[in-house]
Amino acid sequence: MEQQIIDQTLTRIRAALEAGQVEEAIAALSALHPADRAEAYTELDDDHQAEVLPRLDVESTAELLEELEDEEAVEAAAILPPERLADVLDEMEPDDAADVLGDLSPEQAATVIAQMDDEQKEDVVPLLAYEDDTAGGLMTPDVPHLRRQWTCQQAIDHLRQLHPDTETPYYLYVIDRNGKLIGIVGLRDLIIADPSTTVEAVMNRKVISVPVGTDQEEVARLFTKYGLLAVPVADAEGRFIGVIHNDDIVEVIEEEAAEDLYRLSNVADSDLQVFSPVKMSIQRRLPWLLVNLGTAFLAASVVSLFETTIAQLAVLAVFQSIVAGQGGNAGTQTLAMMVRGLAVGEIEFRDAWRAMAREAGIGIIHGAIVGMCVAIGAYLWKGIPMLGVVIGLAMVGNMIAAGIAGTLVPLTLKALKLDPALASAVMVTTVTDCVGFGLFLGLATLFLPYLK
Amino acid sequence: MEQQIIDQTLTRIRAALEAGQVEEAIAALSALHPADRAEAYTELDDDHQAEVLPRLDVESTAELLEELEDEEAVEAAAILPPERLADVLDEMEPDDAADVLGDLSPEQAATVIAQMDDEQKEDVVPLLAYEDDTAGGLMTPDVPHLRRQWTCQQAIDHLRQLHPDTETPYYLYVIDRNGKLIGIVGLRDLIIADPSTTVEAVMNRKVISVPVGTDQEEVARLFTKYGLLAVPVADAEGRFIGVIHNDDIVEVIEEEAAEDLYRLSNVADSDLQVFSPVKMSIQRRLPWLLVNLGTAFLAASVVSLFETTIAQLAVLAVFQSIVAGQGGNAGTQTLAMMVRGLAVGEIEFRDAWRAMAREAGIGIIHGAIVGMCVAIGAYLWKGIPMLGVVIGLAMVGNMIAAGIAGTLVPLTLKALKLDPALASAVMVTTVTDCVGFGLFLGLATLFLPYLK
Repeated sequence: MEQQIIDQTLTRIRAALEAGQVEEAIAALSALHPADRAEAYTELDDDHQAEVLPRLDVESTAELLEELEDEEAVEAAAILPPERLADVLDEMEPDDAADVLGDLSPEQAATVIAQMDDEQKEDVVPLLAYEDDTAGGLMTPDVPHLRRQWTCQQAIDHLRQLHPDTETPYYLYVIDRNGKLIGIVGLRDLIIADPSTTVEAVMNRKVISVPVGTDQEEVARLFTKYGLLAVPVADAEGRFIGVIHNDDIVEVIEEEAAEDLYRLSNVADSDLQVFSPVKMSIQRRLPWLLVNLGTAFLAASVVSLFETTIAQLAVLAVFQSIVAGQGGNAGTQTLAMMVRGLAVGEIEFRDAWRAMAREAGIGIIHGAIVGMCVAIGAYLWKGIPMLGVVIGLAMVGNMIAAGIAGTLVPLTLKALKLDPALASAVMVTTVTDCVGFGLFLGLATLFLPYLK
Repeated sequence: MEQQIIDQTLTRIRAALEAGQVEEAIAALSALHPADRAEAYTELDDDHQAEVLPRLDVESTAELLEELEDEEAVEAAAILPPERLADVLDEMEPDDAADVLGDLSPEQAATVIAQMDDEQKEDVVPLLAYEDDTAGGLMTPDVPHLRRQWTCQQAIDHLRQLHPDTETPYYLYVIDRNGKLIGIVGLRDLIIADPSTTVEAVMNRKVISVPVGTDQEEVARLFTKYGLLAVPVADAEGRFIGVIHNDDIVEVIEEEAAEDLYRLSNVADSDLQVFSPVKMSIQRRLPWLLVNLGTAFLAASVVSLFETTIAQLAVLAVFQSIVAGQGGNAGTQTLAMMVRGLAVGEIEFRDAWRAMAREAGIGIIHGAIVGMCVAIGAYLWKGIPMLGVVIGLAMVGNMIAAGIAGTLVPLTLKALKLDPALASAVMVTTVTDCVGFGLFLGLATLFLPYLK
C-alpha cells in the first residue's frame, strides 16, 4: 500500500516538474512520511532532485536527510548552499547531523559548522570525534537527565519545560554531581509515584551502560540480549554523555547481518547494492574474484599432479568436481552456523574442540551417505565398481576436511581479532577443493589397474 | 564482563549442587539478570536443571522462561508439575506464555490452562490461534488504552490505577466505542499537556497499524523503515487487539537475516546451531547435500560429453574447475546482493530487466579481466597459447551466465511467492557449472588441433 502511495506521488511530482509547477511537486513530496519521502526522493533523477531539494522547507529537508542512506544524504547536502545546509543540520538529530558533516570534506564541514546554531553546534561537534560504528557514533547527546534529590513533581516540571523538540526517551537518566549515571527511571514510574517522593527513591540502580568506544556489534548484542529500548553511553571518566536509541540499533543489526551474508558470498562491503555505480561494484567484487582465482590455481595444481592418470582414464575428470563440490557445500554449511554462532555469542573459544569434533563426526556420517549415493550412481552410469569405492572413500575424507576447516577457519580469524566471515568462504573451499581433488585422484592413481 | 559473572555463578551453582546446598545454588541463579540467568541455566546439565528449576520462585522462573529459546523453554516447562507451570505462566507476558503453551502437546496444554488464573487465561488463550511468525503471534494483548473524551488527568489517573505489573509502553493507544484505534499519545505528551485538555486534542491521528495476520518479515520491515518502538495490531474488523514491541521485533530481524544466510549456505533452518542434536543437524543439512548431488551429476554429465577430448588432452581437466568455480563465485556475489535487496525492499519486480542487464554487463567486465589473468597464467604454466584464448572466452561467457542466473533465480522465486534465498545458491551454481564446463570443453573440442 505504501508502495502505491509512493509510486502515485512520484508520478505527480514528475508531471508537475515537467510542467514547471515546482510548488506542486514540493507539496506532494512534503506530504509523505519522512521514510517514504526519502524513498521517493531517491527514485527521482538528478535534475529533479536538484530542482526540488533547495525549495523544500527546512524541517522537511532535515527529516529527509535523517532518513536517507549515508551516501545519498551527502549527495543531497552537496546540492544545498552552505547556509541552507547549516539551517537544515540545526533541525536534525545531532547524531544524524554529525554523520552528514563527517562525510563532507573538512573544508566544507568547517564552512557549514561556522554557520550553525551555537546550541546545536555544541551537541554535534564533539560527535565528530567518534567513529561511525562505535557507541559514540550512534548516540544522541541531547538527552534530558534528572538529579537524585529532585522530587518526582520537580522532575515532571523539568520535562515540561524542555524544548518541545527534545526527544523524551522512555527511560530518564539520573546523574550525580560529577555527571556519573547512578540510576534510571521510567516515565510511568514518575507519573505513578507520589509527587513528593524523591527521584532517588523510585529510580532503578541496575543500569546497563556502554563505554563510548564500544563496537556497534557489541552494542547491538546487548540490546538484543537484554531487550533494551535504549542504552546510556559513558565517557572514559564514567560520565553520562548520551543515549543510543533502539531505532539506530535496529539499523546496525541489519547492517551486521548483511555484512556476514556479503562476506560469506565474497562481496567486500555490505553497502554495495545491485544498483550501486558500476565502478564501485567492480572495485568491491573483482578483488575477491582474483583472490579466488589464486586459490583456484592452487586447486588446479593439485589436479595437475595427476594429469597422467587422467590421460589414461578421462572419466575421472567427470567425477572430480563432484567430490570437491560436495565438500565445499558441506564446509559452507558448517561455516554459516559458526559465523552466526560467533556473532550472537552462542559459540566461545572454549567450545572450539568440541565444535570441531562434532562437525568432523557429522562429516563422517554425511560422507558415508553421500559417498554411498555417488558410488551407486557412478557404478550405474559408468559400470566400473571400483570407481564407486574410490569416490565413496574420497567423499568421506573430504567431508571430514570440510567439518574441520568450517570450524577452524572462522575460529582462527576470530582469535586474530578479524571478522570470522571475512574471506572464510574462500579458505574453506580452497581446503575442500584441494583435499577433494587430491584424495579422489590420488586414490584413483593407486587403484588405477582396477578402474580400467 | 557479563560472561565472567555467568561463569563464576555457574562454578558456584555446580559446587553448591554437588555439596547438596540447593538453596545456595538457587540464590546464585536468581541474582543474575534474567537474560544471563537463561544463559547460565542452559549451560547446566540436565540433572542440575531438574534439581534447581522446581525450587526457583515463581517470578524468577517466569523471567527465565521468557528469556529461554523456544525449545529450551518447552524442556524447562516439562520439568515443572502442571500446577506450578500454571502459576509461572500467570506471571509471564501473555505472548511468551502462549509460545510455551503452543509448543506443549494439546493434552498437556489443556491441563495447564485449566489451572491458570482467569484474567491471564483470557489474554493468553486467544493468542494460541495465531501462527508464531505473524503479527498475532508476536503481539502482547494486555495493553492499556485510553478513550478520546477523557481528559489528560483522567488518562494519567487511569495509568496509575493499573496493576503495577502491566507493561506501560511509551505510546498509549486511543480507541473509539467500537474498539477501533483512532490515535496514539506519547506518555510525555500526556504529562506536558494541560490536565483538563482532552486526550483527543493531544493525540496523533496518523497511526501505522498492522492486520493480525501480517507476516513477521513485513512487520520487521515497517519497524525498521519507520523507526518504530511499537506497532499496534488490528483484527479483521479493524479493532485494536494488541501491540508488538520493539524487543520482540529485534529477535525477528535477527532471525530473518540468519535465515537468508543459512539458506544461501544450504542449511534448511535458521534455528540449527553447531551444538544442536546430531540427528537434527543431519535432517536439516543432508537433504540439501543430496539435492546438490543431483545437480552435481547434471554438471558431471556435461563434462562426460567431452570425455574423448579430455582423453586426448588431460590438461583440460586441470582448468575446467577454474572456469566453473569463478562463475559460481561471481553468481554468488550477485545472489547475495539480490537476496538482500529483495529483503529490504530496495529491489522491485519492475527493476528486473535493469538489474539483469547490469549484472550481465558487470559479468563481461569481470570475465574480461579474470579471463585475461587466467589466460596469461595458463600460458605461463602450460605453454599453450591457444589454451589461454579458450579459457578467456569461456570465462567471459560464464560470468555473463552468472550475472543472469544470479538475478533471475531469486526474482523468479519471489514471483512464485517463495523465499528468494531458498535453494537459489544451488540453482545458480548449477547454471555456472554447466555453462562453465560446457563452454570451456566445447571450445576446447573445437580448437583441439591448436591446443596440442
